Amino acid sequence: MMLNRLNHIAIVVPDLNKAVENYKNAFNVNISKKIDLPKHGVSTVFIEMSNANIELLEPLGQNSPIKNFLIKNPIGGMHHLCYEVENINDSVKILLKKSYTILGEGIPREGAHGKPVIFMHPKEFNGTLIELEEA
Amino acid sequence: MMLNRLNHIAIVVPDLNKAVENYKNAFNVNISKKIDLPKHGVSTVFIEMSNANIELLEPLGQNSPIKNFLIKNPIGGMHHLCYEVENINDSVKILLKKSYTILGEGIPREGAHGKPVIFMHPKEFNGTLIELEEA
Repeated sequence: MMLNRLNHIAIVVPDLNKAVENYKNAFNVNISKKIDLPKHGVSTVFIEMSNANIELLEPLGQNSPIKNFLIKNPIGGMHHLCYEVENINDSVKILLKKSYTILGEGIPREGAHGKPVIFMHPKEFNGTLIELEEA
Repeated sequence: MMLNRLNHIAIVVPDLNKAVENYKNAFNVNISKKIDLPKHGVSTVFIEMSNANIELLEPLGQNSPIKNFLIKNPIGGMHHLCYEVENINDSVKILLKKSYTILGEGIPREGAHGKPVIFMHPKEFNGTLIELEEA
């Protein structure tokens, strides 16, 4: 079994502070402090559930990878799911052998949370962008 | 804290059998048997992660509530997130008092999994359709 644990679901929002206030107001949830990740072009917080996290993402800088998503979805929307894998290089080998498409060059890179990640093509998974993270 | 646990993420797919085969082929995951829920207009399986489930949904019958979603998203897509609440009636009261919109009549109804549920308006949560389930 390559996947065992869901790490997080990411939701892109146009205004992170407003979204945090809204989630706190509606549901009284615990939310981590905002972190700016200029290298990744996002600011991020986690809504902390007991079994998994919901990540809220806001574009940071001019070349943010989520800028286009917000142009298509101005109020925001669910952006990707992240699953944990034991060994990202082994996972890439298996998936490429089965002819799945890894985005970018197919080479794991450091994700927003400091661990190696890859992204799979949403067309091969019913419109769902899937991130695999070594954890 | 009204929300504590993520119950599932639901992904709508045009062909459930194909999606199951694809997820098994790519990731060697455990997936529950397909269940038809004619009253709810969906067929459903769960991809079973150790900490949460991913639900795959296919329309069933002519009046399926997810039929329009597939017209807009022919290859499928992420459809909703479901969080658990302790008491659905208390949650509804609190959310209505704070002027949030509950879909339908604001009255909890039996969800696809036999427990009372409500849905919140996606416009009030950055394009994310949120289901609350008493669990």
